[in-house]
Amino acid sequence: MIKVGIVGGTGYTGVELLRLLAQHPQARVEVITSRSEDGTCVADMYPNLRGHYDYLHFSVPDTRTLGACDVVFFATPHGVAHAMAAELLATGTRIIDLSADFRLRDADEWSRWYGQPHGAPELLEQAVYGLPEVNREAIRSARLIAVPGCYPTATQLGFLPLLEAGLADSSRLIADCKSGVSGAGRGASVGSLLCESAESMKAYAVAGHRHLPEISQGLTLAAGQPVGLTFVPHLTPMIRGIHATLYATVTDRSVDLQALFAKRYAAEPFVDVMPAGSHPETRSVRGANVCRIAVHRPQGGDLVVVLSVIDNLVKGASGQAVQTMNIALGLEETMGLSHPALMP
Amino acid sequence: MIKVGIVGGTGYTGVELLRLLAQHPQARVEVITSRSEDGTCVADMYPNLRGHYDYLHFSVPDTRTLGACDVVFFATPHGVAHAMAAELLATGTRIIDLSADFRLRDADEWSRWYGQPHGAPELLEQAVYGLPEVNREAIRSARLIAVPGCYPTATQLGFLPLLEAGLADSSRLIADCKSGVSGAGRGASVGSLLCESAESMKAYAVAGHRHLPEISQGLTLAAGQPVGLTFVPHLTPMIRGIHATLYATVTDRSVDLQALFAKRYAAEPFVDVMPAGSHPETRSVRGANVCRIAVHRPQGGDLVVVLSVIDNLVKGASGQAVQTMNIALGLEETMGLSHPALMP
Amino acid sequence: MIKVGIVGGTGYTGVELLRLLAQHPQARVEVITSRSEDGTCVADMYPNLRGHYDYLHFSVPDTRTLGACDVVFFATPHGVAHAMAAELLATGTRIIDLSADFRLRDADEWSRWYGQPHGAPELLEQAVYGLPEVNREAIRSARLIAVPGCYPTATQLGFLPLLEAGLADSSRLIADCKSGVSGAGRGASVGSLLCESAESMKAYAVAGHRHLPEISQGLTLAAGQPVGLTFVPHLTPMIRGIHATLYATVTDRSVDLQALFAKRYAAEPFVDVMPAGSHPETRSVRGANVCRIAVHRPQGGDLVVVLSVIDNLVKGASGQAVQTMNIALGLEETMGLSHPALMP
Amino acid sequence: MIKVGIVGGTGYTGVELLRLLAQHPQARVEVITSRSEDGTCVADMYPNLRGHYDYLHFSVPDTRTLGACDVVFFATPHGVAHAMAAELLATGTRIIDLSADFRLRDADEWSRWYGQPHGAPELLEQAVYGLPEVNREAIRSARLIAVPGCYPTATQLGFLPLLEAGLADSSRLIADCKSGVSGAGRGASVGSLLCESAESMKAYAVAGHRHLPEISQGLTLAAGQPVGLTFVPHLTPMIRGIHATLYATVTDRSVDLQALFAKRYAAEPFVDVMPAGSHPETRSVRGANVCRIAVHRPQGGDLVVVLSVIDNLVKGASGQAVQTMNIALGLEETMGLSHPALMP
Repeated sequence: MIKVGIVGGTGYTGVELLRLLAQHPQARVEVITSRSEDGTCVADMYPNLRGHYDYLHFSVPDTRTLGACDVVFFATPHGVAHAMAAELLATGTRIIDLSADFRLRDADEWSRWYGQPHGAPELLEQAVYGLPEVNREAIRSARLIAVPGCYPTATQLGFLPLLEAGLADSSRLIADCKSGVSGAGRGASVGSLLCESAESMKAYAVAGHRHLPEISQGLTLAAGQPVGLTFVPHLTPMIRGIHATLYATVTDRSVDLQALFAKRYAAEPFVDVMPAGSHPETRSVRGANVCRIAVHRPQGGDLVVVLSVIDNLVKGASGQAVQTMNIALGLEETMGLSHPALMP
Repeated sequence: MIKVGIVGGTGYTGVELLRLLAQHPQARVEVITSRSEDGTCVADMYPNLRGHYDYLHFSVPDTRTLGACDVVFFATPHGVAHAMAAELLATGTRIIDLSADFRLRDADEWSRWYGQPHGAPELLEQAVYGLPEVNREAIRSARLIAVPGCYPTATQLGFLPLLEAGLADSSRLIADCKSGVSGAGRGASVGSLLCESAESMKAYAVAGHRHLPEISQGLTLAAGQPVGLTFVPHLTPMIRGIHATLYATVTDRSVDLQALFAKRYAAEPFVDVMPAGSHPETRSVRGANVCRIAVHRPQGGDLVVVLSVIDNLVKGASGQAVQTMNIALGLEETMGLSHPALMP
Repeated sequence: MIKVGIVGGTGYTGVELLRLLAQHPQARVEVITSRSEDGTCVADMYPNLRGHYDYLHFSVPDTRTLGACDVVFFATPHGVAHAMAAELLATGTRIIDLSADFRLRDADEWSRWYGQPHGAPELLEQAVYGLPEVNREAIRSARLIAVPGCYPTATQLGFLPLLEAGLADSSRLIADCKSGVSGAGRGASVGSLLCESAESMKAYAVAGHRHLPEISQGLTLAAGQPVGLTFVPHLTPMIRGIHATLYATVTDRSVDLQALFAKRYAAEPFVDVMPAGSHPETRSVRGANVCRIAVHRPQGGDLVVVLSVIDNLVKGASGQAVQTMNIALGLEETMGLSHPALMP
Repeated sequence: MIKVGIVGGTGYTGVELLRLLAQHPQARVEVITSRSEDGTCVADMYPNLRGHYDYLHFSVPDTRTLGACDVVFFATPHGVAHAMAAELLATGTRIIDLSADFRLRDADEWSRWYGQPHGAPELLEQAVYGLPEVNREAIRSARLIAVPGCYPTATQLGFLPLLEAGLADSSRLIADCKSGVSGAGRGASVGSLLCESAESMKAYAVAGHRHLPEISQGLTLAAGQPVGLTFVPHLTPMIRGIHATLYATVTDRSVDLQALFAKRYAAEPFVDVMPAGSHPETRSVRGANVCRIAVHRPQGGDLVVVLSVIDNLVKGASGQAVQTMNIALGLEETMGLSHPALMP
């Protein structure tokens, strides 16, 4: 059994890790930390877990107990992994970081977007961006994995086939993304109250969202040149789900886009290219580690519309984290992740 | 008192007309028709109206009683107004049609999108497109008003300042629109069930939605030349509201867009240009006859992002219809329409 | 014009007062206070009010400016009205308190349930419980009105006809009540997040909720003897609305309950006794100052089931407050409160 | 591998069976029938199942292919199992019927509530009511299992400890139950539209719901005498979940109810008696085959309040059906049913 530690398990990505790992035949959570909930049984905080983790209590983070794990997930606000990663890596364990701490290659850019100095620039070299559909080989030998953000996962998977094939004008990409409220986390904020966010739709952070540089970095790598991206996130009145509606201009109208996408993801266990003409729904991936994609070219023009949906807490966070764990530890990649989505 | 008739009042635009007219000091609904509900008291069907219309029963459509009204609203599926309009107009009453029957100037195009012959092409010449922010003068003397669709209202109001000023590349416009489920009407369809549409997001009709030609027609008039528009509607898990996220490339980055929009709508009672940096929420217009707009130019690039929100049943349908009635009958334009939105 | 002051206008009952008073032909809000939002324009905080209160800014509470108003509403947490009421009343203004401060006649009981000493027991004598259907005459001359809570309004209106007529076993009353999340207020708490309260149902405070003594007090007065009440509130995944399902054993099965309820409320403008067999929906009163009631006696037994619905923010708070203002100031009772509910 | 057939798999209990069986290590769905969807791939209808059942198409019901299965589930409207059961049982297969056809022991009572003659009274003798917590032994050898309804499961599990111990006044039981909209099925009906059922709460069928005789039958068996039950179901604005709030008068206040419930369900894998003072949420069982129960005695009176929550589609239907399959086929009872609930 793989020994798992989780740092900061009181948020939504934390409880989702626990839910997924409860179904994982080869992993067992040994340690879960929370300074504020030290001593609380996890099942007291998350009653859906009653009967699954009756042995497990939150504890104060401790390098010794965490270091005894085979892998340590960070489900923390940004900055925490910066502070603890070097010491933990020195114990020989692996780190899979769900926060933004190691997603950007450039420490200065990180600092600009997060408004504080990068806390561990010396680790950036060994950090591997944990998008298996792009970086599977690097993940196999990684000690420090930066799990992609939710918007970046949906957006990159949708744009990749076009950019890798050099088929899109990479200077004018648009990502109009809609996220459920769980993307805002479990912190008590007025904007995330049911009475503020239900029965309403709004864009936010149009001037610049922290996921913008992460997406741009990934698309730039795929395109082999800098990209121009406009990213507009929207808060959607639902709990889970991201729907990315992506716009790109194709340079060659004769290309069979359906075939291009199908081929790109033919071997991917967690990317589902739907039949031509499909409209994926976020509920079709609720609770599941899947990205479903459909590609359209309306009215036969040169504007391509890609629809890409994920569950932000699964393929956009904890599920993808477990997927990278499976890869890094040499397990079957789909282990513990093959259950269908919950619908309705 | 203005005598009002309503044809087809059992759907959502019908009940919304009744709600709005109950607050209108100068209008009284005299006739409301429904073949299927003949004899039913409207308050039995819509208990929110108990105490407001206890005198009013659905009746079978009849030209004589409808013709005795000063104005007749059609809140019907497409095709009905085609069949009844000529005879009704001959009685001397006015028609305000909330359906799509007279929105398109070109009968052939209508026929292509609706899959049936246009039923009253001879009336198209006198039909006035009822968007007051564009057509106020024509509405004043109109006998037959075609109330714009919900997506077209939100989208046109958002794009108009740019196109009228010749500031946008009109060949590459994108409208990424999100609608509440009431846009699909009150018909019993599986896709509109709570269990199918709650807690999920999806695009639909990407290949071509019937509102596309209507929007294109209006934008073409505003731009003075044919436009290229990609329109992607999304079904959003809420009852009311449309959020249009509009993308256009400006040809001159030095223009003060905030001032442009503020000036364009300075005299408009129902268009609210929000302060720079705003993100309008659909709930801020719930139940109110208002379009709120914010304009952004992210990262100082040449791509403009306009956010435009309406309540699809009010400014996107019944409220706009009452607004045109006020104009056409020489009443104060805001009469009965000045209540604030319901929030939370 | 009646000059209105509002103390503590940043919560949901505050914004609802503003929404309702914007439609009131005889009232104008002159002062609205908030320590934390001093200087903020109310329309900046509540964009639904843009265009309605552009003159109005939050200010620090001040007895002089508030005292210059004809009436001052308190939309504050408990304890605030205790601290300010005496001084304000001395200026000659009226107070309409939406908080719990003056609802209980017994200061000691208040103290037990709220865990702090009663701050103004000397004012209890003049405080009038603001349920017009019971206390209309006393409200006419009141200087200090305690607006009932939301659960107490729905529950008392449902039980009153039975208890006043001496028809129910008052020792075994059950109120199973379901409330929308807005009842929990606008404070940032984890339990009210969309992700915690949407798509779920739960009871809370079964051991004892603060509205229990208020309801018991009212029912005791109606019955003329102490009552035994079990009150179980539930958090329901919606924004607005209370559905009270009330159970009582009738002592005489031959009574015509429908007639009893109809007669009791025949003259009440804001209580709607629905036809026999009805099932009122909370949405039928959304945004409206109405309580709709239906009475059932299933299978012809002796257990009566009363269904009573209100909008917790309107008839359960701000609407009822305006209703008492109308009464106290000699205006028509329904003034500004006669718009229909928003449906759908 | 156990060969599974499903009759009528297009509704919510059908797709839920498919979801659960996809995770079952010993079962494989071989046949799924639907007259209207003959030939359709199940994954085309339910995109959450893409990749799980790519081999499986709906087919017209056929006794030969169904009879070749080890077990056949009926996820059909009432009446269908009546018509097909005898012939199918003759092939030697087992039937697990999720409809109401064989739940009532008395064919005449069935006929009264369902408004049509009972179609297979001769099979009632061998039909076993599939509530494992009551009937586990009988289920082991059953050929025809009637899976309990959703309300009956939540209500019976909540009342059983009291009634079996003879501790409650069985003549005055009240079940105030709240159900998500999926309980109304996937049929296109106006009342189940998002715009009709979201953001609202209502009771329905207060005069008498078809689950009433089923619950009464079960409680009568538990109590050893006829019971008096008032059952009030409510439509709740959520997809999944039942919250039963149960009221009973205890005849002995000295009993330790917490211990009573804990002991009754100590050995039950799918009933979770929560700690004293708990308030179970329906989301804590979303997607899971669990009933969570808490028991309260407010203010130390003699009225007991039991809170019982299930997912109506899992422990209230398809999960319980799989549980009975496991029992009947000699598998481990929890097989394929041990995943945690999806939260948030």
